[in-house]
Amino acid sequence: MSETIGFIGLGLLGLPVANNLLNAGYALRVYNRTASKAEPLVAQGAQLVARPVDAVMSGGIVVSILWDDAALESVVMSADFLEKLGANGIHVSMSTVSPEISKKLAALHAQHGSVYIEAPIFGRPEAAVAKQLWIPVAGPEVAKERVLPLLKAMGGQGIFDFGEDASAAVIVKLVGNFLIGSAVRSLTEALSMAEKNGVDPQAVVDMLTQTLFPAPIYKSYGKMIAEKTVTFSQSKIPLKDMGIFRKAAQQVESPTPIANLFYDLMGGNEDEN
Amino acid sequence: MSETIGFIGLGLLGLPVANNLLNAGYALRVYNRTASKAEPLVAQGAQLVARPVDAVMSGGIVVSILWDDAALESVVMSADFLEKLGANGIHVSMSTVSPEISKKLAALHAQHGSVYIEAPIFGRPEAAVAKQLWIPVAGPEVAKERVLPLLKAMGGQGIFDFGEDASAAVIVKLVGNFLIGSAVRSLTEALSMAEKNGVDPQAVVDMLTQTLFPAPIYKSYGKMIAEKTVTFSQSKIPLKDMGIFRKAAQQVESPTPIANLFYDLMGGNEDEN
Repeated sequence: MSETIGFIGLGLLGLPVANNLLNAGYALRVYNRTASKAEPLVAQGAQLVARPVDAVMSGGIVVSILWDDAALESVVMSADFLEKLGANGIHVSMSTVSPEISKKLAALHAQHGSVYIEAPIFGRPEAAVAKQLWIPVAGPEVAKERVLPLLKAMGGQGIFDFGEDASAAVIVKLVGNFLIGSAVRSLTEALSMAEKNGVDPQAVVDMLTQTLFPAPIYKSYGKMIAEKTVTFSQSKIPLKDMGIFRKAAQQVESPTPIANLFYDLMGGNEDEN
Repeated sequence: MSETIGFIGLGLLGLPVANNLLNAGYALRVYNRTASKAEPLVAQGAQLVARPVDAVMSGGIVVSILWDDAALESVVMSADFLEKLGANGIHVSMSTVSPEISKKLAALHAQHGSVYIEAPIFGRPEAAVAKQLWIPVAGPEVAKERVLPLLKAMGGQGIFDFGEDASAAVIVKLVGNFLIGSAVRSLTEALSMAEKNGVDPQAVVDMLTQTLFPAPIYKSYGKMIAEKTVTFSQSKIPLKDMGIFRKAAQQVESPTPIANLFYDLMGGNEDEN
């Protein structure tokens, strides 16, 4: 395969995903704010570029995996990015961002004749290496068909279509992250109660994950919590995501007692006025 | 099989479990505060008795499935109960009670030469009928061996041994109920957020239970929440259990921010001074 893809954001997840694309035969133009992170990819033939727009090909596909709304928006609004992507161009946005920014950027891309697709990733960096990612995807139909092979090549073992409104995919991602955070924090509270009452927490995890909760999240985090090799703050669900979930719920008047508690426990209100 | 078992407590779970024992060939002496509930069992040959002690055979096995600490304690402390159970008698307690009462009753039975075993049940009444119950069990080894066939006949598809201290099994039950409650309430909060943002909650449940959360609790409650046929208050995890979990944690200085929130949301502080 010789199609060239633009790839913006080489963080913990971006790097192995980009690497999967190189291995699948795609050519890559990569951009990262800290350029040195691109070195392993450049060593495998990726072309490192100096600005986000340089990763864009007119009418081509550009992928971004960035930290938050602000980072994503600064890339999209950077000089000539939208103009160059232009007609038939597709931006596959894989960051965990707010539905607000998603709707705003979808409209901006449409104004420039290009398509904005949301395809946020469920999976830790190890899962990316193992090509065991789960990807909800949403956006205009024709564009989704064009990017489907790309999502599979990135390591998507399961890709789930949530329709034409791009923001639906970030809603799903926020729901998933909230539920992961809730499960991990609940497990921590429960296993601490068991252990301090003299019951082996690993034995509790063994029973529960063979019965009521035979799910990867409960198995992997249960083991790590029982062995005290992880705390909730290391569960990889950042405060930012809990904050976006909460805001997205509150904007539609959906109650958030649990998200409020977690946001507080994670220190979310400490630096607010 | 002709062994006669005493069976105390014919509630939503007690009734189908007792019925399984009859079907497995055990003879039953049944007691229930509201005697009329025993009718279907009596029709199948069970003997209805007038007092808890009448369900007890000296040196035999008596099973109880009762609502709470107070109901269990009143049965055990009722006239001649412990005296009659006597040497080699076994009381299999299957109620969801506090570790405190469990320790207290284990000591009381020991003083009378009998054995107290905890074997609380995970499973709704339908699961009892289908013989798909999960049972953590704890107590003295020899007695556990004697009751194991009974637990299987009751519908225990999986029985998990948590050692010699009977209270360990109720700790496991409390942990499981807390995690069920947390999962159901978190799903409710998350799916409401998705739906009010225009995303089909059943599609979200479908993806998540094929990926991160392929667990019966998420599948069954996810579907019910998406279809609005269940609310958290109907999740069968009663306020009482959340209260026992919280107290058992606080007594060993284990933090309970989530249990506190749920207890409050369930109205747990409304009738306190």
